[in-house]
Amino acid sequence: MTVTLAIDAMGGDHGLAVTVPAALEFLRRSPADRVILVGDESALRMALAGQRRGSVPASVNARIGVRHATQVVDMDEAPALAMRNKKDSSMRVAINLVDEGAAQACVSAGNTGALMATARFVLKTLPGIDRPAIASMMPTQKGAVCILDLGANVDCSPEHLLQFGIMGSALVAAAENKAAPSVALLNIGSEDIKGNEVVKRAAALLRESPVNFVGNVEGTEVYRGAVDVVVCDGFVGNVFLKASEGLAQMLRAFLREEFGRSWLTRLSALLAWPVLNAFRRRVDHRRYNGASLLGLRGIVVKSHGSADILGFRCALERAAEEARHGLIGRITAHLETLHPVTA
Amino acid sequence: MTVTLAIDAMGGDHGLAVTVPAALEFLRRSPADRVILVGDESALRMALAGQRRGSVPASVNARIGVRHATQVVDMDEAPALAMRNKKDSSMRVAINLVDEGAAQACVSAGNTGALMATARFVLKTLPGIDRPAIASMMPTQKGAVCILDLGANVDCSPEHLLQFGIMGSALVAAAENKAAPSVALLNIGSEDIKGNEVVKRAAALLRESPVNFVGNVEGTEVYRGAVDVVVCDGFVGNVFLKASEGLAQMLRAFLREEFGRSWLTRLSALLAWPVLNAFRRRVDHRRYNGASLLGLRGIVVKSHGSADILGFRCALERAAEEARHGLIGRITAHLETLHPVTA
Repeated sequence: MTVTLAIDAMGGDHGLAVTVPAALEFLRRSPADRVILVGDESALRMALAGQRRGSVPASVNARIGVRHATQVVDMDEAPALAMRNKKDSSMRVAINLVDEGAAQACVSAGNTGALMATARFVLKTLPGIDRPAIASMMPTQKGAVCILDLGANVDCSPEHLLQFGIMGSALVAAAENKAAPSVALLNIGSEDIKGNEVVKRAAALLRESPVNFVGNVEGTEVYRGAVDVVVCDGFVGNVFLKASEGLAQMLRAFLREEFGRSWLTRLSALLAWPVLNAFRRRVDHRRYNGASLLGLRGIVVKSHGSADILGFRCALERAAEEARHGLIGRITAHLETLHPVTA
Repeated sequence: MTVTLAIDAMGGDHGLAVTVPAALEFLRRSPADRVILVGDESALRMALAGQRRGSVPASVNARIGVRHATQVVDMDEAPALAMRNKKDSSMRVAINLVDEGAAQACVSAGNTGALMATARFVLKTLPGIDRPAIASMMPTQKGAVCILDLGANVDCSPEHLLQFGIMGSALVAAAENKAAPSVALLNIGSEDIKGNEVVKRAAALLRESPVNFVGNVEGTEVYRGAVDVVVCDGFVGNVFLKASEGLAQMLRAFLREEFGRSWLTRLSALLAWPVLNAFRRRVDHRRYNGASLLGLRGIVVKSHGSADILGFRCALERAAEEARHGLIGRITAHLETLHPVTA
């Protein structure tokens, strides 16, 4: 299946300098797919011309569309203001393209709050979903795990957590091509009696649901790769994510400091370089870039604002996979099992 | 000031094999302090005899007391059952010694739930404290940070978080000898409008309190060493802790795997050994062992169940520091500022 991606080419910390080369690289690797770059047309044409010095084959060129948009949402703009005042932003137009059916998914590295608010306003939520969630993949000892919600919903009911479980399960089924992914609730112990009231009631709902619910999981087990999908409220998920980011940054800083102490330690770093590099590649957060905004009537993927070309390309690939494997249809099917349409 | 520690010598995964040598090492390094080892007397005498082959000076010997206790709380025993059926457990007797004033602090590597329940029952909570909390130190890029609660209270009100802030501030002031430690709420953004309702209302209470409240902090900032005390509910704190543990274990496993791939990589590990070792020492979790049960009318420190001799000794040192620097008095003084006694 051919997928067309609408790309907010102006979003993110680096804008066109990242989005355009990432889009070209994506097209080179996905020979049937197409992209529509949304943003200031003359700047886009210039960025494309700058990239093209003989190296981009016509077969790639032919699959690039450009759509003009006169505005850009600032990274720190209030979502409500962006919605009201930036109706012709590159972000909004990219989402519109999904709504109109001109694209099957949209990707932006812009302002998360504005992207969620605009996507929700334009695309609307799926029937049976109260609140969209943000989901992302993270590396584990055995592969990868999908965690949601990562910050869109700070106060959640058990029903919200149930919906997150359904959406996360569909996401892993679609994007990772896994049948019946295992779903767990993030908790502070694996026993059923552990946790707060919301988590306990969510467990009861998930047990009755069509997803492959396996019970509670602790943070240590998450990184061991015990399950495919981890469900939690947005506050807890964001803490999980930021604690992990912070610890990883600290360990990296300590390693750099210790290897940089003297000429002797620097020499040993040089000798250990292939190993350290293999290690770095293995936990390279860029390969996990691309958080999915789930629960909408269209596919929207949020790239990290500071993503580089490799990172943004990974987000594009994630969006294309979700579209190719019918993510929205899978979520809808799950939801219908839960609330059968009474004819 | 001389401190006497009551040690639950039977607790933990390794029992006497760890607690006895750790106690001796503690006494060697703290030439004025004393310990009372609580447990099966004959087993204790044997363990002490086994350790003493000429290497323990009389000056250390003279500072060891032994107190017989006929029972041991199992690591997975239900707290309520341990309370009811094990009234002569090494854990209970050690806590009793604090209550009676025979010791200024007690340390156990046993069952956390039973320790908290028993300590609360025997020692009672301080006036103004609704619920005791568990606090621990964690390494940061600049030193260390105190986080609480780590799992004792999963559903917290804003008032509970305020009390945690007061207790954490007193703990860092006492154990780390810091005047006016900075206290922050763990949140999913640094702006005041972020977070769930409980956190927003807790911020308002902390702002009016005597602690040096500096606002919200994210997980990434925690590891950068932005603040001295991080306050959160026990669910969130436990997720923070377990996510960090899980990630650290994963990175360690990956590094080991990458360095173990071939004779060449193993050679480079050998050459990088001094650096890797310095790195390991720096983030050695054993040096941060010893979680404080705060809000009780006595000092109780919980060691990790799997702690080794170094780890358990660090927990003993933590308990002694808390006693030496008047932790309970500091917490009480803070609480009185908050609720002035109207004469």
